[in-house]
Amino acid sequence: TRLLTGLLGLQVYSSGILERVVAAFQSISGDAGVSLGDTVREQHGRDESVHRCHPPDVVVFPRSVEEVSALAKICHHHRLPIIPFGTGTGLEGGVGAVRGGVCFSMRKMDQVLDLHQEDFDVTVEPGVTRKALNSYLRDTGLWFPVDPGADASLCGMAATSASGTNAVRYGTMRENVLNLEVVLADGTVLHTAGRGRRSRKTSAGYNLTNLFVGSEGTLGVLTKATLRLYGIPETMVSAVCSFPSVQAAVDSTVQVLQAGVPIARIEFLDDVMIDACNRFNSLSYPVAPTLFLEFHGSTRSLEEQVAITEEIAKDNGGSDFSWAQDEESRGRLWKARHDAWYAALALRPGCKAYATDVCVPLSCLPEVVVATKKDLIRNGLTGPIAGHVGDGNFHCIMVLDPNDQEEVGQVHQFTERLARRALAMDGTCTGEHGVGLGKRVLLREEVGPLAIEVMQGLKATLDPKNLMNPGKVL
Amino acid sequence: TRLLTGLLGLQVYSSGILERVVAAFQSISGDAGVSLGDTVREQHGRDESVHRCHPPDVVVFPRSVEEVSALAKICHHHRLPIIPFGTGTGLEGGVGAVRGGVCFSMRKMDQVLDLHQEDFDVTVEPGVTRKALNSYLRDTGLWFPVDPGADASLCGMAATSASGTNAVRYGTMRENVLNLEVVLADGTVLHTAGRGRRSRKTSAGYNLTNLFVGSEGTLGVLTKATLRLYGIPETMVSAVCSFPSVQAAVDSTVQVLQAGVPIARIEFLDDVMIDACNRFNSLSYPVAPTLFLEFHGSTRSLEEQVAITEEIAKDNGGSDFSWAQDEESRGRLWKARHDAWYAALALRPGCKAYATDVCVPLSCLPEVVVATKKDLIRNGLTGPIAGHVGDGNFHCIMVLDPNDQEEVGQVHQFTERLARRALAMDGTCTGEHGVGLGKRVLLREEVGPLAIEVMQGLKATLDPKNLMNPGKVL
Repeated sequence: TRLLTGLLGLQVYSSGILERVVAAFQSISGDAGVSLGDTVREQHGRDESVHRCHPPDVVVFPRSVEEVSALAKICHHHRLPIIPFGTGTGLEGGVGAVRGGVCFSMRKMDQVLDLHQEDFDVTVEPGVTRKALNSYLRDTGLWFPVDPGADASLCGMAATSASGTNAVRYGTMRENVLNLEVVLADGTVLHTAGRGRRSRKTSAGYNLTNLFVGSEGTLGVLTKATLRLYGIPETMVSAVCSFPSVQAAVDSTVQVLQAGVPIARIEFLDDVMIDACNRFNSLSYPVAPTLFLEFHGSTRSLEEQVAITEEIAKDNGGSDFSWAQDEESRGRLWKARHDAWYAALALRPGCKAYATDVCVPLSCLPEVVVATKKDLIRNGLTGPIAGHVGDGNFHCIMVLDPNDQEEVGQVHQFTERLARRALAMDGTCTGEHGVGLGKRVLLREEVGPLAIEVMQGLKATLDPKNLMNPGKVL
Repeated sequence: TRLLTGLLGLQVYSSGILERVVAAFQSISGDAGVSLGDTVREQHGRDESVHRCHPPDVVVFPRSVEEVSALAKICHHHRLPIIPFGTGTGLEGGVGAVRGGVCFSMRKMDQVLDLHQEDFDVTVEPGVTRKALNSYLRDTGLWFPVDPGADASLCGMAATSASGTNAVRYGTMRENVLNLEVVLADGTVLHTAGRGRRSRKTSAGYNLTNLFVGSEGTLGVLTKATLRLYGIPETMVSAVCSFPSVQAAVDSTVQVLQAGVPIARIEFLDDVMIDACNRFNSLSYPVAPTLFLEFHGSTRSLEEQVAITEEIAKDNGGSDFSWAQDEESRGRLWKARHDAWYAALALRPGCKAYATDVCVPLSCLPEVVVATKKDLIRNGLTGPIAGHVGDGNFHCIMVLDPNDQEEVGQVHQFTERLARRALAMDGTCTGEHGVGLGKRVLLREEVGPLAIEVMQGLKATLDPKNLMNPGKVL
């Protein structure tokens, strides 16, 4: 009966079928490669969001693409849902087994496979995380810059079309994945750009790579990703600057981009967020709208980037820059930014956090941020704001008591109001967290019924039995 | 009977049906919006390649998306193929009406619709060309940098996933299209990212935008594109440098990229190409492997970019840089590069040209270029080489007598050998020209039968009657 959580959804399996299936899984991935334990299943039924845990019936830990393919064939035969799992650091409930089924944890496939230094590319297995890749690359002079904060798996990042702080300079996963190996619902193995291909650009046929980037496990299991790498900049310096208003901070951002400054990071934190960071990390930044900035380049080019940016900030009433140049002080500065989540949580001990995620055209940012702050205050909600302001992308880190149903409902309504505010400004309901479980209604409002129908058609073509992470995105 | 060119393909229409259809087209787009004339049909049956002209049965000139939709519905009802036509500057036979049908020329839809200067985006109708957009933008401090050489329409460029000289710095069409309006085969109007959406990034659902970018008219008619814009750099300088070998030129390129120099253009011309350019434009560059370079940035950052690049070139045996800074001399320099096509043609007056297009990982470039030059010499073929070497992408401009069947066959075989050489080095058979008619067999070799099957499935979902530019890509 433990095996019958699928009852909730559309599929119902008899435990007899699942027992046979488990034996078949074990014959493929070994006894240690299959888990039915409650704890393991629960660990794999939730991400870092506030979505309820939906444990899968079984968790498998394949060691190779051949195993993934063999396991998928069994699932396909028995019509068992397949839910790919990277590190569980998603934020929209993408990994919950809402219709039961089999979680494919990719953590045993954690090898960096093919590094081509001269070509600035590397191929990784799906369990390799962002930080693991960058430590592997440490002595090569290269790095992979896409940085969502969490130490997510790179294929998980591809699956949600992740981005983060460096996207303004280096792009998102969409721009940085050259090829993917994918196991489809029926167990066949697809290479989106052809096996082993890794040229920096191509016009050869439909762009299957970018169909799978952002598909959130609903079209196939990513088993390999070929990624673009970049030379580590000669110098990096970071700075913090506070502003008299949200408008002033955003105006500065637009002007910096207009001036062609190749800024690597430009992060906005509102007064509530900076206050929380101050408390959490014992810092003393002025409690005001603030930009965290980072510049990458040669020492000389940095001087100029910085000079232009400082002048723009000053013209907009910004404070003097507070500097961090050596790795340690830069680390300390960005730790404050990356700890935003925990700093927000610390505002209300014992609560949980939920990060909203919208993205609007740059010029709409002041209006949407100001309206959102008013909304938070009016409704007595705790939601410090942090944003990748160079892309028009920002988050409210909602801190809430998950046992207070009224508050949970209020946060949900706030989130929808925020998303609709972004949609009304030509924006999107998700800049980088994906749709998952939480934003399916908003996605429909954003793209319209025809685009949803087209997406459903594409899904039906690749996964006619609707086995791949069913109930998500669409 | 003039209306029966469809006989060649699978569709056969009686002239009775076509006459009724033409009357319906005229009621939508006016008498001036429908052409049956031989000259007009022939102009729309070929691009700039050596592929044979396949005139459509009718050419329509819609003035709005509503007209495109209404015309498409009629075609859909009568199962008439639809072939979108921009400027006819394609290079793989993408516009030929190989199964007859209706050519949709987009040239009357030539308005720049929504410019958002602060947001760095613009929406254009499909008839707007690259140069027309950049003259429209002249006084805004912004520009659209993707530059394939030809003054192609921007939606045509999106359709073939075009790129060109600036891609190493600014990306290709894939990275620079934010949203597309598309009329599907049944006349419905799709907005790939949702109507009016223009945020700089999104994770909302499947990436339909990049499914249509590069689809070469086989999935729908592009009727609007929202594009990313960039600030015009404060300063641009160009330079020319010659090298003792292909290897030395390519090594310099890799080292420049490794050093993080944000070079805007880095173009390779082989000795044959530079000789042809010298003759055509009365220039006197040394006849040797040559790089044409362009740097964008502030005056100070350029000094440094240039210093690093000069040092790297020198270390690889490169000549002193020959400089061009003011707009006129830069224009002269790049004219030489952009005239490569005509310079090549001038090598053999009365002949036609066909540009091959492959792309390989950077480190494979010397080997593939050297092998290709040997192949050209061994077979007595004229094919000067020019390449976007920062992306690993290069072309041989094959000059041939189209009436000499033996030579035509030899060039065809050479092209396939070149593509297979690129494929053997993890590369692609087309970096930026697309598949069109000419590379369908090579595409299959490149991506494999499963990826072809997936592409066919996607096509069948969006265009179940196979009316959109049939016979191309797949």
